[in-house]
Amino acid sequence: MGDLEIRPAAAADLSAIVAMLADDPLGAQRESPDDLSPYLAALQRLTADPNQHLVVAVRDDRVVGTLQLTVIPGLSRRGSARSIVEGVRIHADERGSGLGTRLIEWAIEESRGQNCQLVQLTSDNTRTDAHRFYERLGFTASHVGFKLQL
Amino acid sequence: MGDLEIRPAAAADLSAIVAMLADDPLGAQRESPDDLSPYLAALQRLTADPNQHLVVAVRDDRVVGTLQLTVIPGLSRRGSARSIVEGVRIHADERGSGLGTRLIEWAIEESRGQNCQLVQLTSDNTRTDAHRFYERLGFTASHVGFKLQL
Repeated sequence: MGDLEIRPAAAADLSAIVAMLADDPLGAQRESPDDLSPYLAALQRLTADPNQHLVVAVRDDRVVGTLQLTVIPGLSRRGSARSIVEGVRIHADERGSGLGTRLIEWAIEESRGQNCQLVQLTSDNTRTDAHRFYERLGFTASHVGFKLQL
Repeated sequence: MGDLEIRPAAAADLSAIVAMLADDPLGAQRESPDDLSPYLAALQRLTADPNQHLVVAVRDDRVVGTLQLTVIPGLSRRGSARSIVEGVRIHADERGSGLGTRLIEWAIEESRGQNCQLVQLTSDNTRTDAHRFYERLGFTASHVGFKLQL
């Protein structure tokens, strides 16, 4: 396998990103890979926001992973910022290759560079493999994640 | 008790907000109520960011609660935004008054107004009273919340 590059996502990557979002037990019913227009509008909003870092992992000119890192300034912990990782997806061909680790390590390093004191994420209760993965990377399952659909 | 107002936080509210952040079993060791300068810098950063909504609840000219709502644009769910609630604090004198409910209901309404499809938050595993509170408000404890200190 060729070298891996992690770089900001661009419009030309959207089709590959949305295919990964849809190729997932939870994502299959929530996405519309045949209509990219809502995703393009969202990408423009993300790109304009300096606290948003949507990246893709590229190998041999192919998008094989994605992750969204959000920097959240705040008052608590003496005015420190934290970061939140969302939308981690790895192409089916790359699972088990260590790419997930590379992407999360990128997010941790970027968070340090942005002076965050904390990196946080939530993972669906059913994704037990993901839970073990995050614990191996040093994360602690210290919180309950609550969601309310609007 | 007088009427309650929920409004954006201002510099003059910082002392009261930080006192609430510090008046908490988890917050006591993490805050510096005697030195507000790092909080003022963070407030300026929050105020300049259109996706950040740091509010205070005020009754009889007294700050009695606070909450931070962050709007996070994203690609998943057809390019929908979500919101994250952080830093919910209620003054000790107001606990049990329904103020927590009022603040979370404000956050839900603001999230709808910002076209968010989802409101999410994490609560420390030890805060079991808070867990019941969020479930009563319609939230589902569907996720595990992972944190990594940097």
